[in-house]
Amino acid sequence: MKSTMTFKMTLIASAFALFAAESGLARESAVQHTGSKAVVVSNDITEAEVIAAQSAWGGALVQISKDFEEGGIKKARATANAVLDAAYGYNLGAVLFKPTLTTVPNTFRTTKEGALSYFVGDNSKYPQDTGFALKDWRSVEIKNVAIYLDGDTAMSMGNVMMTDKAGKLTTVDKTWGYTKDDQGTLRIVLHHSSLPVPGK
Amino acid sequence: MKSTMTFKMTLIASAFALFAAESGLARESAVQHTGSKAVVVSNDITEAEVIAAQSAWGGALVQISKDFEEGGIKKARATANAVLDAAYGYNLGAVLFKPTLTTVPNTFRTTKEGALSYFVGDNSKYPQDTGFALKDWRSVEIKNVAIYLDGDTAMSMGNVMMTDKAGKLTTVDKTWGYTKDDQGTLRIVLHHSSLPVPGK
Amino acid sequence: MKSTMTFKMTLIASAFALFAAESGLARESAVQHTGSKAVVVSNDITEAEVIAAQSAWGGALVQISKDFEEGGIKKARATANAVLDAAYGYNLGAVLFKPTLTTVPNTFRTTKEGALSYFVGDNSKYPQDTGFALKDWRSVEIKNVAIYLDGDTAMSMGNVMMTDKAGKLTTVDKTWGYTKDDQGTLRIVLHHSSLPVPGK
Amino acid sequence: MKSTMTFKMTLIASAFALFAAESGLARESAVQHTGSKAVVVSNDITEAEVIAAQSAWGGALVQISKDFEEGGIKKARATANAVLDAAYGYNLGAVLFKPTLTTVPNTFRTTKEGALSYFVGDNSKYPQDTGFALKDWRSVEIKNVAIYLDGDTAMSMGNVMMTDKAGKLTTVDKTWGYTKDDQGTLRIVLHHSSLPVPGK
Repeated sequence: MKSTMTFKMTLIASAFALFAAESGLARESAVQHTGSKAVVVSNDITEAEVIAAQSAWGGALVQISKDFEEGGIKKARATANAVLDAAYGYNLGAVLFKPTLTTVPNTFRTTKEGALSYFVGDNSKYPQDTGFALKDWRSVEIKNVAIYLDGDTAMSMGNVMMTDKAGKLTTVDKTWGYTKDDQGTLRIVLHHSSLPVPGK
Repeated sequence: MKSTMTFKMTLIASAFALFAAESGLARESAVQHTGSKAVVVSNDITEAEVIAAQSAWGGALVQISKDFEEGGIKKARATANAVLDAAYGYNLGAVLFKPTLTTVPNTFRTTKEGALSYFVGDNSKYPQDTGFALKDWRSVEIKNVAIYLDGDTAMSMGNVMMTDKAGKLTTVDKTWGYTKDDQGTLRIVLHHSSLPVPGK
Repeated sequence: MKSTMTFKMTLIASAFALFAAESGLARESAVQHTGSKAVVVSNDITEAEVIAAQSAWGGALVQISKDFEEGGIKKARATANAVLDAAYGYNLGAVLFKPTLTTVPNTFRTTKEGALSYFVGDNSKYPQDTGFALKDWRSVEIKNVAIYLDGDTAMSMGNVMMTDKAGKLTTVDKTWGYTKDDQGTLRIVLHHSSLPVPGK
Repeated sequence: MKSTMTFKMTLIASAFALFAAESGLARESAVQHTGSKAVVVSNDITEAEVIAAQSAWGGALVQISKDFEEGGIKKARATANAVLDAAYGYNLGAVLFKPTLTTVPNTFRTTKEGALSYFVGDNSKYPQDTGFALKDWRSVEIKNVAIYLDGDTAMSMGNVMMTDKAGKLTTVDKTWGYTKDDQGTLRIVLHHSSLPVPGK
């Protein structure tokens, strides 16, 4: 693995250098690529796609809040359900989801039902859930610290700052893992969110 | 999987569209990314790296020929040995290698010894091998038809045209598979080469 | 990369050994895994799945021949079309396909139309194609030399021996590349087939 | 993506079913695999390797505590340094690491120096760090909720319960991401740990 900042230099150095050290190599000018541009097939996740998926997540959170205000729990639930179907990977078997505020014995929400309850509450199986997405969210700011790309899997870590309609700011430490499905859509397969430890 | 030509449009369409259909979504302006640029860690193979690895392969072929002319089999073998160590993945366990001209019962060269014999001959275990890389090669032209990228694995297919010092051209149908190792070097893990079927 | 034959030993050696050399480590008995079995989500391709996909390919070849005999080109084409949709990855953008007997300028069949023409002919754009799958195939024998597994991508190399109803045997050197789609189906994304070079 | 619990059934259903629906397929008995067992090359991470890497992490934590008691900060630091080199992926560019107790502005420890300070303290750049690994740990219990495997990348989520020599138990919600390097060693590339939210 190499940081993308360094791998171009590494490439130039590596493919040739190991054997060039023992033998003066033919100049690269002996080789040329010709013909039409090759068709490239790839399902690799790009940094831009991670950013777009995060923007979609933030937009969805705000939307659920607004739908709750306009249409009540029924509308909010419908939106949250659609968001979970579209943006998470529950269709793939399970999602590694530790929401910000869940408690024992329902800390982890590996099923869609558990995730839906966390976002909009109203589920007697999860009596502590009050609906995190219903808290009047108006805007979301995301600061990524690091992003890890590996083919059709990616991970990101950083802070997410959510502001409600009263201007109150909530900051969380956030990790997301993603896969890209056959339609080219990023799906969240891992989500660990936690409140920052108070500074001393 | 999506062609890279189409996935950007797909991305825009997909991440939002599925749930946006049911609910007018908050404008993306509700979400912003701030802070320093995230560190990106990635070992994904790019198209440019595939091209560079192919150029390295072609340059190495020409070099082995020149080293043979200048320094005989000993020098050619040393260069070919270094090329195999640097550019192929025999250190990973085995390489799926079907050279252009090998015959039964030694068609496949999954070991480094077998590959070295194919390139420079001089191995009594492989009496048919006359050393493909010793044939006075002077230049290599590569035409990729299609390239498949999947994280730290890639595949390419197309034609490779090799010209010797007498100007004689040899064309082969060529498939390569690659992995990128921890140092960021592409290694050939699959290589299927065959002579074109004569046209009618 | 490690051969699967060696990685278990490597695992035991590696995770601990590097630092254990400098410091006598706590016995592993200080650590235990408890609780219910974790849900495991994976799209990795197994060797058994590669074998099954190869069997499906062979069965499909024989089926197209039989359907041709029973129902003519129309039935053979319908079956071949369904096979291409089900077993190849043309829906992913392109397939790296070099069939056994194609010639310049139509050597590579990166589109489904080109592949279908190779298998059942009857396409004026590819006048040389006589329909490889229509040649009275009755059985298929597959000998893999090596298989490369990397997550949802895999490659295999070896021989495929096809016998027709007259008992005539045709052997090819065969490379396949596969991806596993979201439904868990292996799809061929690379296929390089060539006639063996005659022995001397 | 499919749960490993379901993919075997899926395989049987999928490879054949799509086209078999339209055409009675040739019996699989028309196809057989023969020859020696293929060499299999794979760098895929298994569930057992994830478990072993977690055990190594727990054993290392206990070891650092014991080394601190026996040899002071110098010995503890040497062990922690070796653990970071052996078990984390800082050599790959950066690690997405959010330790349990870090605070703003040093919440994320993407560099090895930051991680070492978290585990053993004694670094003036991180004045809040008191050395999490020095807290007299004696045993570690791990409960995985879900594990995600994707080739040479994996992720796990669950609880880790650490007991010190006084018998005091500390529980954390834990997410790890791993890659397997060329030597077959799993390396932690993502680590998000947080204290559980107190129940109501």
